Amino acid sequence: MSPDAADPLTLDADPVFAMHRGGKITVQASVEVADHSALAKAYTPGVARVCSAIAEQPGLAAEYTWTGNTVAVVSDGTAVLGLGDIGPAAAMPVMEGKALLFKRFAGIDAVPVCIDCTDVDAVVATVAALAPSFGGINLEDISAPRCFEIEDRLRELLDIPVMHDDQHGTAIVTLAALRSAARVVGKDLADLRVVVAGAGASGVAVTKLLLSVGIGDIAVADSKGLIYKGRDGLSQVKAALAEVTNKAGLEGSTESALNGADVFIGLSGATIGEEAVAAMAPGAITFLLSNPDPEIHPDVARKHAAVVATGRSDFPNQINNSLAFPGVFRAALDVRARTVTENMKLAAADAIAALVGDDAAPDYVIPSQFDERVAPAVAAAVAAAARADGVARR
Amino acid sequence: MSPDAADPLTLDADPVFAMHRGGKITVQASVEVADHSALAKAYTPGVARVCSAIAEQPGLAAEYTWTGNTVAVVSDGTAVLGLGDIGPAAAMPVMEGKALLFKRFAGIDAVPVCIDCTDVDAVVATVAALAPSFGGINLEDISAPRCFEIEDRLRELLDIPVMHDDQHGTAIVTLAALRSAARVVGKDLADLRVVVAGAGASGVAVTKLLLSVGIGDIAVADSKGLIYKGRDGLSQVKAALAEVTNKAGLEGSTESALNGADVFIGLSGATIGEEAVAAMAPGAITFLLSNPDPEIHPDVARKHAAVVATGRSDFPNQINNSLAFPGVFRAALDVRARTVTENMKLAAADAIAALVGDDAAPDYVIPSQFDERVAPAVAAAVAAAARADGVARR
Repeated sequence: MSPDAADPLTLDADPVFAMHRGGKITVQASVEVADHSALAKAYTPGVARVCSAIAEQPGLAAEYTWTGNTVAVVSDGTAVLGLGDIGPAAAMPVMEGKALLFKRFAGIDAVPVCIDCTDVDAVVATVAALAPSFGGINLEDISAPRCFEIEDRLRELLDIPVMHDDQHGTAIVTLAALRSAARVVGKDLADLRVVVAGAGASGVAVTKLLLSVGIGDIAVADSKGLIYKGRDGLSQVKAALAEVTNKAGLEGSTESALNGADVFIGLSGATIGEEAVAAMAPGAITFLLSNPDPEIHPDVARKHAAVVATGRSDFPNQINNSLAFPGVFRAALDVRARTVTENMKLAAADAIAALVGDDAAPDYVIPSQFDERVAPAVAAAVAAAARADGVARR
Repeated sequence: MSPDAADPLTLDADPVFAMHRGGKITVQASVEVADHSALAKAYTPGVARVCSAIAEQPGLAAEYTWTGNTVAVVSDGTAVLGLGDIGPAAAMPVMEGKALLFKRFAGIDAVPVCIDCTDVDAVVATVAALAPSFGGINLEDISAPRCFEIEDRLRELLDIPVMHDDQHGTAIVTLAALRSAARVVGKDLADLRVVVAGAGASGVAVTKLLLSVGIGDIAVADSKGLIYKGRDGLSQVKAALAEVTNKAGLEGSTESALNGADVFIGLSGATIGEEAVAAMAPGAITFLLSNPDPEIHPDVARKHAAVVATGRSDFPNQINNSLAFPGVFRAALDVRARTVTENMKLAAADAIAALVGDDAAPDYVIPSQFDERVAPAVAAAVAAAARADGVARR
């Protein structure tokens, strides 16, 4: 250790570090092996019968191993929270935290897997190789645009559900909140003009999901300003986005696009000024989802916007992925889904919005993370959608 | 499912299948997340502080994540029990069982990882990529000779302990039992003439470890008979073995080599006849380790041999890896060992033999799997050896 290395005892004075000491999850036996007889069933020689049965009939693996209730939470550590590319070892506390949420909200055995490779081919090969060990793959905190190709290829390769939560978890919960918010301000989704700040994993996925439900018009901005058809140097993903967004062909800044807009969705870590919010249409909706610092202080936004949501638990309307992924994977495991379809995501968003329903109000467009109704409602809706889409194996 | 597919309800009439339903292990939270405040510590935003600290000082990962107490039990499913190459999905019940033993005997959080690749480069790349997620790697049921190269390369690549248990776990426990058995029959290790049937993972590792403690002479046989210098078509590993074994240059069968031999160690799944055991030297020692069927029925062997051990729990002297690997990895994790050295393995064997000590008797050359003294004794000895070898990080 270097002389100025942090002393664990000092670190533990911080309750966050004290809570993390030794990690946040453990593996426990779910069967008792108290004597030779039990061991001869759980391990050799008895276990050989179970292995042979699975070798003959692979579907039995989901019944007689823990894989039927497991999800791998996989990250390469390239886009961890707002911290960026901090590497796989430093990403582990987040993936453990995610495993904790999987268990807490959906009873799923999630295993954090932080991998030491960033090349797209290598990430795909590694995750594909792990697939027999898990019932589903939750990709997490993988940087854009790599995350798009990695998820696409894994979805293609594997017959278990693969979902990049930073994309689709965020998109599901954002759509759910937007449904309720539109209700609060008395507008139709189809009429909304939306501005999304951020064209990374979540910005792209949110935009696509909102388009798929018929949102009128969406303009997306990245760090260089609004994305429009023909803008120089657009990546493949952004060029595709330019084709289906920004009907008016607006150029310039996020703030300029907010003039008269109905909805602002911030997913970029950028900041916006009070005047820009003030210039939005009456009944404006602002989702300030950058964490830990929202794009503008929520109290300031609230002076001009009818609905304000953030990613934080200390303000009303917390838009948090944990409302979506536990129920989505619970359903996917329960019906042994081969994949996660668009309809399954839409069903999840609708289920969350339905829990708010008529109670929708400026400070209540999304249920609490601890609303125990959420995961079961999402799971039921997603399972039904999986069956309707023909991707359920049971 | 095909019409003749096994019906799970029928399978569950077998208590082994009933015990396996849903798997044998689970992930549990070791911290409570009952409210927003706890969640803000275990997950965002608090968790970011822990991530940042690890990014700055990687050694903190072992303190503030669960990796400091975890081992991956990795198999590619190519050599599972006596079943052979049944693939990764069918290997899972064994790896789960192993995880159960890690917890039961050493309090270690072991994660079964069954990987869907068999090419040596791919296996090495996959396991190396997983390394940041675990404190150690237990390789399991990987076919020979691939297992040798895979282990060697991973040991070279990684700075965490990597051990192929079929090799070294077996070798450690066999050496421990042989020490006690030699004591029972009043012979010195250096004087023993040993015949090993089997030149796969365990046969090679047992032979090497026995040679390293000065066993007089060892002849090793594979399916084609005794291995001797110059035999046609020897693999690289067997050619190397031929250089240091079979001093007399014996050719022919395992049984022929047993004539006058002091020790037989069966690791091959082959069978030997009663006459061959009868022809061994007085005070013969036979370790009949093939599972579930020993090379010769232990009761028959016992008519001619002074000491008989098997791999089975229903006969005396069960030689089982679970006496070794829990304590070896407990120590390796406790001292944050960079690797597993030869001295650590020898220390483990000595510690196990020492627990038998003066109580050694024909039916007691090895402690019971459920002897609670074993794992702590092994761990203490292995930790001391790791420190003496300079591979301990604390």
